[in-house]
Amino acid sequence: LQVFSCNSNPVLAQAICNHIGIPLGNAHVGKFSDGEIHVKLDDSVRGSDVYVIQSTCDPVNQHLMELLVMVDALRRASAGTINVVIPYYGYARQDRKARARDPITAKLVANLIETAGADRVITMDLHATQIQGFFNIPVDHLVGVPILADYFKGKGLTDVVVVSPDHGGVIRARRLAERLEAPIAIIDKRRPEPNVAEVMNIVGDVKGKTAIIIDDIIDTAGTITLAANALLEYGAKAVYTCCTHPVFSGPAIDRIRESNITEMVVTDTIPLSESKQLDKIKVLSVAN
Amino acid sequence: LQVFSCNSNPVLAQAICNHIGIPLGNAHVGKFSDGEIHVKLDDSVRGSDVYVIQSTCDPVNQHLMELLVMVDALRRASAGTINVVIPYYGYARQDRKARARDPITAKLVANLIETAGADRVITMDLHATQIQGFFNIPVDHLVGVPILADYFKGKGLTDVVVVSPDHGGVIRARRLAERLEAPIAIIDKRRPEPNVAEVMNIVGDVKGKTAIIIDDIIDTAGTITLAANALLEYGAKAVYTCCTHPVFSGPAIDRIRESNITEMVVTDTIPLSESKQLDKIKVLSVAN
Ligand SMILES: Nc1ncnc2c1ncn2[C@@H]1O[C@H](COP(=O)(O)O)[C@@H](O)[C@H]1O
Ligand SMILES: Nc1ncnc2c1ncn2[C@@H]1O[C@H](COP(=O)(O)O)[C@@H](O)[C@H]1O
Repeated sequence: LQVFSCNSNPVLAQAICNHIGIPLGNAHVGKFSDGEIHVKLDDSVRGSDVYVIQSTCDPVNQHLMELLVMVDALRRASAGTINVVIPYYGYARQDRKARARDPITAKLVANLIETAGADRVITMDLHATQIQGFFNIPVDHLVGVPILADYFKGKGLTDVVVVSPDHGGVIRARRLAERLEAPIAIIDKRRPEPNVAEVMNIVGDVKGKTAIIIDDIIDTAGTITLAANALLEYGAKAVYTCCTHPVFSGPAIDRIRESNITEMVVTDTIPLSESKQLDKIKVLSVAN
Repeated sequence: LQVFSCNSNPVLAQAICNHIGIPLGNAHVGKFSDGEIHVKLDDSVRGSDVYVIQSTCDPVNQHLMELLVMVDALRRASAGTINVVIPYYGYARQDRKARARDPITAKLVANLIETAGADRVITMDLHATQIQGFFNIPVDHLVGVPILADYFKGKGLTDVVVVSPDHGGVIRARRLAERLEAPIAIIDKRRPEPNVAEVMNIVGDVKGKTAIIIDDIIDTAGTITLAANALLEYGAKAVYTCCTHPVFSGPAIDRIRESNITEMVVTDTIPLSESKQLDKIKVLSVAN
């Protein structure tokens, strides 16, 4: 068994190696002067079961291409099996034709990974579980709920309600709620008329409770910060939020800083650069 | 027939459309806040022969992914045939295992383009013509020599010698030399000992002549500026240089500015940003 890392998440890769007690494989994933990716494997991989750890987070196209070139190099170096560990699977939100003539990039990416030569994919909290079916090779789909649940249990919060920020996330919210032995509530966004701001209604009882909003991805943090406000208006005592994948693009950090959210709990599937670290953001590791 | 452009080379795409007398197709190739590519086709393409124009130049991974997502969108929108026009084919220099465990990224890219759903590829001056064989779909391989030759003929230079900067480029140099009715010379780089700078010897007669160095790609411009010096030392009267693909990365522009090169003639397979435009760089269009 050998583990290699590309450039998206070297800290997580090292933590995983520490956990299983082997050294990280020696490889260099760099760039030529013109921006082309350059992969150099320093260890022989002949016949070996190889794991490559790479999240396809921003810069997504570069990180995806690093992964593909790495897989190509491993295959041509006669690796036994190539297992790609993609803690955060980028392009997952482009998983269907939402409008006419849309691409389905989540499927394209699955095809690209297979074409490069991966034998198996291990990923976490796909935006839609259907994406597993975009692959012909086996997909192991891990979930972040147990890690998040353990953390919240450790805090000893009382009178909790778990909140799904939309109807698509109810199953995830229910899983967390079961582990916390809490009820759930659902935010029901409605746009009363075109070009009028959405109104957030809350289905379920949140008055006087500590709300924990759970989502898979938090990107610009627009929805989640508005949801927190709505919950407080409806009488929630405090709002915690959690997600597996802290994409945190554009105005996300400013919005979180200025929000009424008590704490934002995320995992390390996407590393947070220094400018994205806030006191109220707590990072849990998925390494184990 | 419909022509779409991604973001690498919109000026060339428009020039091609002007030449064939049709409007450029309406499509939007943008980015979401987290850097993921977003393609929106505004025209129906059902049953149509579609041409997509995109060079995979720096930022190469983004430009490649734009092309792949565009092809995915066209295929899912039931385009009749999808013809991808890649004036500059990035990753072409990673075309073989130069060292053990190297990837062969030029082949990987060919596979990715086929996987996305292209039916035919049209490209120019591949770094190695073998790359045509990396595709299972038809490849039309155009060459820049006629355009470069016409330009130099128009200048009325006398006593010309066409110079190949290495042994791999002799056939290209001979093609240009035939059109200019000129002899050729070859630069023979030798490294006398490991870790000692290369010495440039010149095979052929350049004394008192006007040298024209021709290459496929000029990247950091290290080789070509040293070659120009060597030619002048060997008695050349003046040195012109030309190439199809002006990659011009890293120190290229500084080196060209400070070099003894009289004129550098390139094509528009890769657009030159404003900071890369110099008086001594002449750009010819391949649109026709
Ligand atoms: N990277 C992205 N950033 C923002 N929106 C996206 C992104 N990728 C896809 N989308 C859009 O998000 C929607 C899918 O989100 P959802 O409805 O939550 O599954 C679609 O309308 C997509 O066009
Ligand atoms: N983008 C690039 N920039 C610089 N060198 C490269 C690049 N891609 C490949 N190479 C190297 O260039 C060599 C191939 O160039 P050549 O010998 O001219 O075919 C190989 O040793 C590659 O490792």
